[in-house]
Amino acid sequence: MPCAAADAHPVFDQWGVAEFAFTGPAQGDPFAVRLTAEARGPGRSVRVSGFYDGGGTYVVRHMPDAPGSWTLRTQSDQPELDGLERSYTCRPAQPGNHGPVSVLEGQHFAYADGTPFRPFGTTCYAWVHQAETIQHETLVTLTESPFNKLRMCVFPKHFRYNEREPDLYPYLVTHTGSSTWHLEYGGTDAGWDFDWDRFDPAFFQHLEARIGQLAGLGIEADLILFHPYDRWGFSRRTPAQDERYLRYLIARLAPFRNVWWSLANEWDLLEAKSEEDWNRILETVADADPYDHLRSVHNCFRFFDHSHHLLTHASIQHQDLDRVVAWRQRYAKPVVVDEFGYEGDLAEDWGNLSPAELVHRSWQICVGGGFCTHGETYLDPGDVLWWSHGGALHGESAERLAFLRAVLEDAPFPLEPLMNSLPTLMTLMGRREDYTMQQFLAFMLENAADRLQGLPPFFSAFPGLERRHEYQLVYLGPRQPRTFDVMVPSGESYRAEALDTWAMTVTRLSNAVTQGDTLELPGRPHLAVRLIRVS
Amino acid sequence: MPCAAADAHPVFDQWGVAEFAFTGPAQGDPFAVRLTAEARGPGRSVRVSGFYDGGGTYVVRHMPDAPGSWTLRTQSDQPELDGLERSYTCRPAQPGNHGPVSVLEGQHFAYADGTPFRPFGTTCYAWVHQAETIQHETLVTLTESPFNKLRMCVFPKHFRYNEREPDLYPYLVTHTGSSTWHLEYGGTDAGWDFDWDRFDPAFFQHLEARIGQLAGLGIEADLILFHPYDRWGFSRRTPAQDERYLRYLIARLAPFRNVWWSLANEWDLLEAKSEEDWNRILETVADADPYDHLRSVHNCFRFFDHSHHLLTHASIQHQDLDRVVAWRQRYAKPVVVDEFGYEGDLAEDWGNLSPAELVHRSWQICVGGGFCTHGETYLDPGDVLWWSHGGALHGESAERLAFLRAVLEDAPFPLEPLMNSLPTLMTLMGRREDYTMQQFLAFMLENAADRLQGLPPFFSAFPGLERRHEYQLVYLGPRQPRTFDVMVPSGESYRAEALDTWAMTVTRLSNAVTQGDTLELPGRPHLAVRLIRVS
Repeated sequence: MPCAAADAHPVFDQWGVAEFAFTGPAQGDPFAVRLTAEARGPGRSVRVSGFYDGGGTYVVRHMPDAPGSWTLRTQSDQPELDGLERSYTCRPAQPGNHGPVSVLEGQHFAYADGTPFRPFGTTCYAWVHQAETIQHETLVTLTESPFNKLRMCVFPKHFRYNEREPDLYPYLVTHTGSSTWHLEYGGTDAGWDFDWDRFDPAFFQHLEARIGQLAGLGIEADLILFHPYDRWGFSRRTPAQDERYLRYLIARLAPFRNVWWSLANEWDLLEAKSEEDWNRILETVADADPYDHLRSVHNCFRFFDHSHHLLTHASIQHQDLDRVVAWRQRYAKPVVVDEFGYEGDLAEDWGNLSPAELVHRSWQICVGGGFCTHGETYLDPGDVLWWSHGGALHGESAERLAFLRAVLEDAPFPLEPLMNSLPTLMTLMGRREDYTMQQFLAFMLENAADRLQGLPPFFSAFPGLERRHEYQLVYLGPRQPRTFDVMVPSGESYRAEALDTWAMTVTRLSNAVTQGDTLELPGRPHLAVRLIRVS
Repeated sequence: MPCAAADAHPVFDQWGVAEFAFTGPAQGDPFAVRLTAEARGPGRSVRVSGFYDGGGTYVVRHMPDAPGSWTLRTQSDQPELDGLERSYTCRPAQPGNHGPVSVLEGQHFAYADGTPFRPFGTTCYAWVHQAETIQHETLVTLTESPFNKLRMCVFPKHFRYNEREPDLYPYLVTHTGSSTWHLEYGGTDAGWDFDWDRFDPAFFQHLEARIGQLAGLGIEADLILFHPYDRWGFSRRTPAQDERYLRYLIARLAPFRNVWWSLANEWDLLEAKSEEDWNRILETVADADPYDHLRSVHNCFRFFDHSHHLLTHASIQHQDLDRVVAWRQRYAKPVVVDEFGYEGDLAEDWGNLSPAELVHRSWQICVGGGFCTHGETYLDPGDVLWWSHGGALHGESAERLAFLRAVLEDAPFPLEPLMNSLPTLMTLMGRREDYTMQQFLAFMLENAADRLQGLPPFFSAFPGLERRHEYQLVYLGPRQPRTFDVMVPSGESYRAEALDTWAMTVTRLSNAVTQGDTLELPGRPHLAVRLIRVS
C-alpha cells in the first residue's frame, strides 16, 4: 500500500505502510543485523524495527497514524545502515481505510477512526500455502462473502486433508536430498533441513502481499503465529529461535493495519511449549509491536488465561455457546468464539454442523454479546476444504451470516446483552440445579438492578441485545412463541419487526409498540424480534 | 379391576386390586378409625391399610402379587371392623398386565413380570379436574398416543390457563356462602372453607377410576402428591394434616399397580414446606405403601437430593440435556427428565419448543441413558392445553416419539451409554475449558477403560447407546457427517441402518459391517445410526 511518488519525498496513506529500502551487508549473518528507526510525525514518535529482505536489501516499514510530515532516522550496528534519514508525507486515509482495530468500551471493537468493528470471521488456516490458483479463488470468494476477519497460519499445516507441501517455507532449506516426506506428526527425520537462523524473504513477501490484499478487501488478518499441526519442526524451536522468528515477523507485518496476533491455534496441543513459554511469547509480541495490534490465544481444550493483561480479547474454542455471556463477565474483554464447529459433513465433531446449526450458534454467540467465526468443511474430491485451503464456499450459512451482520450493522453501537433475560441470568448464575428460587431471585436483582433502570421488573424468556432507550434484538432460537411481551422503558414507542434468521426476511409487526404491549408472532422457530425506537 | 365372582370366594387378578367392603360407624370421625389388614398368600404376607369410603362403608384393598389362595384378616379399634376375614383366589395376570414397575439393574425400569419398561411420559397435570367430556377425550387421545406414563396432580391446579374450579375436592367443603373466588395464589380468604380432617370419598373414587383406566391403557400414573399452584390452601397444611392426607391417599391408591409417587411438582416452589418437611413426607410415603411404588421429587430450580435412599429415581426439570449422563453418574439411579420444555407456542420458556426441538431433546435424553417426558402447550381459544387439561394433541412431536419408542423397544435391553463417545466423556468431565488434552486423555482412559474391552481405542464424535456385542444406536443430532466410522469389537458383523428421527424412516446402509468400516451417510441432520449384530 505505499503510494508511489516521483521524488525523494514520497506520500503514504494514513494507516498505510510507509516502506523504505536500504542497502547493507549481504554476507555474514544479515538476519542478525540490528536495524531500528525512529519515525517522527505530528506530535508523535515511534520506534520501529527494520528487517533483512534478501539480496543485500534492508527494509524499514512504518504505519503512520496521522496526516502530515514524517521523518524517519535509522540506527544500526552496521555503519552503512546507521543514521540514514528519510522524509515523507502522510495523507489522510482513503475511503474504506479506517485504520487498525482495537478494543473499545471494554467488550467491543472499533477502528482507529472510530468506526465500529463487529468481527464476522472465517477460517482458511493454510490458504497462503496452497497453489496460486486456489489462493486467487479464495480472494474472489472473500470479495463476495460477509467475512471481515480471516484466521490464517504463518506456518504451513500438517493435518488430515492438509498434506500438500507448500512452495515456500519461512526458513531457508539447507538440504533437499530426499524427495519423500515423513508425514508423522512432528517428525524430524525428513532427509531435509532448515537453517533456523535464516528466514526466506520470499516466503514473507508472499505472505505480506496476501495480507495487503486482505486489507484492500476490508478483512482483518487474524494471524496464527504457532500451531501444533507440524511435520517440519516449526512448533518445536528453542525460546531464542522463537523470539528471533517473532521479531522478524513482527518487524515485517506490524505496519499492516489489518494484522491481529493470534499467538496460537490450540495452544494446549503444542506439547513442546510450557505456559512459561507462552507468557514469554506474549511479552515478546507485545514488546516487538509498536502499534499494539490485538493479541489472543486460541485453545483446543483448556482456555488460556484470557485475563492476562497483555491479551486484548478472549479467543475461544467451545461448543456450549450459552456460556458466552459468562465468559464475557469473567474476562471483561471482548469474547470472540473463533471455533464452535464448522458447517460441513466430516466425521469429526468440529466439522459437521448443519448450516442451520451454524447459523443458530452464530446468533446464540451474538446475543450473548460475543463475536462468531465461521468455517466450512465439506468433503471435497480434491481435498480443497474452505476451512484450511480456501477456494470456494459450498454451504448455506455464509449468506445467513451476511444477514446477521447486516442486522447488527444497522443497529446502534455498542449493544449489550439484555440483562432482564432469564436465560442470560441463569447462565451467569451457573447450574440452575444448585439454587433455590429465592437465591435465584436475589441473584437476578443484584446482577440486573443497575441495568434495569426504567425497565419494568419483568424478565424475558429469551436472550437478546439492547441499547437502552434505542433498540432491542431478541433471539428466539428453537422456540416458537405466538406472542411476545414488549418490555421497554415506559413512555417510549418502538417499531417492531420479526426477523427470520434462516429465510432472511424482515416482517413489520407494528409501527408503534409500548411497554406492556403484546406482539403476535408467526409461531415458527429461529425468529428474532427487533424493536427500534421511533419516539 | 376386581374380577366379579358369584360367591364369597372372589377371584382377582395378579397385580389387580382385591377390594373388600365392610360396614362400620358413619358418625363421629370415621376418617380417624384405625383399620388395617393382614393379607396372606402363597408364602407371603402383607400388612395393608383400609380407609373410610363414606356412607358407613370401610374398604380394604390389596394388590396380590402371586397367583393362589389368599386370606385377609382385619384389625381395628372399632369392634365391628376387627377380626373380619375374607378369602379369595388370585389368578395369573391377564395379557397386558405386567405388574408394577420397579428399578432394575441400577438405571433401568422393568415390570414385576420382568418385561422391560422404558418410560415415555407425557404431562396432563390437572386432567382429572376438567369437565367430563375433556377427560374422556384425554383417554381417547392417550389410547392412540405413544405415552406409557402420565404426570398428573391429585390436587387441582391454579396457574395461568388453569383457573377452572373443579367439580370435586379432596376435602369436604364446610361453607359455601360465597360464590366468588379469591384467585390469589395461596389465598385463604375465600368465603369458603374445607374440613381438613374429612376427605371427600367421591373425589378419590373419581381419581382412582381414572387411574384404573390408565392401567387398562398400559399407562403408569406418575401421581403428583403436592404442588405449589394453589389458591385453596392444599399446599399449606400442617405436618399432621399432610400425613393424614398421605396415609388416606396411599391406602386407597397403592393397590393400583400403575401408581408412582411423585412427591412434588417443583418442590422448591412450595414456600410453606422445608427440606425437613419433604424428608418426613418421603418417609411417610415409603412407610404407608406396602408395595414400594416408585418415589421421586421434581424440581423447578434446585434439584432435590436424588441420592436420598428412599428415592427410587431422579425426576428432573432442566433444559441442558447434555448433562443427563452426568446426572446418571452422580445419582446411580434412573434419570427421568420429567420436564425439559413442552412443544407449544406460549410466551413462557417452558412452553414454546418447536416440535423438532422437542424431538431432538428427547433423543438427546435417551442417548444419555435417561428417559424423557413430553408435554404440549399450544395456545387454545378454550384454554384446553394438553399439558394441564388433556383433551387432544395438536403437535407434531408425539408421532416422532412413537418412532423413538419403537426404536428403543426393538433394541436389546438394557442399553447403556456408549463410553467411547467424546461428547459423553466431555460431559462427565465437566467444563472442557478447564482441562488440558493430557488430563482429558487420562480421564477418558480411566472412565472408559472397563467399558471398552473388545472395542478399538478410538472415540466416537457422537453420543449413543449400546449393548456390547449386540447393538449400537448413535445419535448425530444437528450434525451431518457424510461418513461414519464403525467401531465394534473385532470379528463381529453388524447390519447398519440410518434412522431419520424426523421423517421416521429407516434406511439400510449395509448388511454386514465390521470394525474399521466406513459407512456413507445421507449427509443431513437429525439422523441416528443403528448397528445390529448379525454374526
